[in-house]
Amino acid sequence: MSRRRPSRASRPRETERSLVAWLAGQRGTGGLVGDDAAMLPPRADHVVTVDFQIAGVHFPPDLDPAILAKRLLAVNLSDLAAMGARPAHAFLALAAPASFGHRAFFRSLLREATRHGLTLAGGDLARAPSVCASLTLIGERWPRAQRWLRRSDARPGDRMFLGGTVGESALGLELVRRGARLAPRGVTLPRGLALPAELDRAARRAVRRHLLPRPQLELGAWLARQRRGAAIDVSDGVARDLHRLCEASGVGAVIEVDLLPGPASLAKLAAGLGCDPLELQLGGGEDYVLLFTLPPEHAPPPRLRCRHVGRIERRRTGLLLDRGGRTQPLPDLGWDHWS
Amino acid sequence: MSRRRPSRASRPRETERSLVAWLAGQRGTGGLVGDDAAMLPPRADHVVTVDFQIAGVHFPPDLDPAILAKRLLAVNLSDLAAMGARPAHAFLALAAPASFGHRAFFRSLLREATRHGLTLAGGDLARAPSVCASLTLIGERWPRAQRWLRRSDARPGDRMFLGGTVGESALGLELVRRGARLAPRGVTLPRGLALPAELDRAARRAVRRHLLPRPQLELGAWLARQRRGAAIDVSDGVARDLHRLCEASGVGAVIEVDLLPGPASLAKLAAGLGCDPLELQLGGGEDYVLLFTLPPEHAPPPRLRCRHVGRIERRRTGLLLDRGGRTQPLPDLGWDHWS
Repeated sequence: MSRRRPSRASRPRETERSLVAWLAGQRGTGGLVGDDAAMLPPRADHVVTVDFQIAGVHFPPDLDPAILAKRLLAVNLSDLAAMGARPAHAFLALAAPASFGHRAFFRSLLREATRHGLTLAGGDLARAPSVCASLTLIGERWPRAQRWLRRSDARPGDRMFLGGTVGESALGLELVRRGARLAPRGVTLPRGLALPAELDRAARRAVRRHLLPRPQLELGAWLARQRRGAAIDVSDGVARDLHRLCEASGVGAVIEVDLLPGPASLAKLAAGLGCDPLELQLGGGEDYVLLFTLPPEHAPPPRLRCRHVGRIERRRTGLLLDRGGRTQPLPDLGWDHWS
Repeated sequence: MSRRRPSRASRPRETERSLVAWLAGQRGTGGLVGDDAAMLPPRADHVVTVDFQIAGVHFPPDLDPAILAKRLLAVNLSDLAAMGARPAHAFLALAAPASFGHRAFFRSLLREATRHGLTLAGGDLARAPSVCASLTLIGERWPRAQRWLRRSDARPGDRMFLGGTVGESALGLELVRRGARLAPRGVTLPRGLALPAELDRAARRAVRRHLLPRPQLELGAWLARQRRGAAIDVSDGVARDLHRLCEASGVGAVIEVDLLPGPASLAKLAAGLGCDPLELQLGGGEDYVLLFTLPPEHAPPPRLRCRHVGRIERRRTGLLLDRGGRTQPLPDLGWDHWS
């Protein structure tokens, strides 16, 4: 199960974690709590992933249909990227009111799908009072791929990398909550939010990053061509997703705070919104960059713009945050859509 | 695209048909307007189908979670049955409020899935104000299957069959609209609906049939072992689904009204509810029996309880209804969820 979205604490009787843990113990589940996508037996020559976008839950109900289609696709493609899979087939289930811009949605979906080599192969349409879309993607192997990427392939001694900056999407979400919107013509910031020009631009970028993430398919393809290393996409925050990777691999890890990449104006913009930048970087979700490991002698090529952020340790080390030499435990915090 | 559910006419600017026709002409779609499930290239050794169940659209919002899980699975399995596919893998996207009975839902889903040889291989969970579930099923070939079943394999001279009675689910829907409910303990009929004992039983059966259809997987497996013949599942009514089959095959057809199988008390119960029984049989949806054709020398074995209902003609014959020797055109009516 991939897990996405909002709200920090999970206090109700049933948490997502308790439900997923319970599910894993039931008969009839397979690979349910595992990687970002499931491998299809018997030959494991395809991987499958499914993700929702629900109005008011995953995006503002007034989001433009063309942007929604891109977001739906991007979020799903990120799971394929994390498996090192090449996009192949898409199946859409779309429920929407009569007033929804169906053709604008499909035009955008098909344009983006074609760009990624995906065919929309089937689906289901329904009318409903609000928009609920689920997309199933089936991925194949890239040429020269050696393997699927797994969460479970990290080993002590590996170096740990991020495929891009983290924390920006959480800033964007905070702005959307305050009324920021993305339309085809551009970003509108919340009324009353007066920012200096430099931060104004950063705020617009953050909103765009949140609503239109960029799946790291090229990085996934490169990683799938390497012989070893684990990967996961950062959908629920570095802290939570690193916990998942370490649990699956049976290892510990140390993240160096000073190496964590954020957008240039993260600190200033976070301060302007009353947020803690490190909390956004570690606990903010939906950055959709890959968090991955490589054996010590390996590094991704510079064109992929990855950042070294730490190292994999033995399990007994636990998960640590290194702030200039002083370490502290990294809590398993992050976005949980089970508010 | 498989299409399900309510409301007779489609008058808004965009109809489902106009949208699907438009989609079929766009770049990036493949097999979108075709069979009940899509075959996966390159080897076509898997078929994939996806279907929704949305509270208030496809089922009453107070439906028991365990029953909902069975319905969600059954509606999807019917698409695999219509392809002659063996259930293999399931992927669930489930959005529901905190108060939803998640464990009851999953217990029921996993029990039924296991019974059908399905593994729940992945999915996505979210919290949302009302229930929206989409299920993607992947099917494989049955042992000794010769082919996938297609809508396009009917030939003039074929005999036409139904895998069971039609019209009962539409009666059940009418009763649900009037307040009938199905709970694990049984069916509750609408207050004020006073029926004689015989019709009371028939009404309860109809509600159960509507909410818990039985996918005809055994029949689909038998058909996939035959060398020829077309198939579709009756999700939107015999009239509409026969139009689809004939269009895909480039043929015409004649249905003999007197041969149409309905439950024994269809006429009486329909009269009691102020409905036209023939309209329910031809235009009512969600019976989820297979409508199929076989070459003239073939017939399904008696244990499958199929009924001969007509014959396939050349395209120029059109689609006709034969009422004791007098024929009339069969209109392309049926359930359309684009109310």
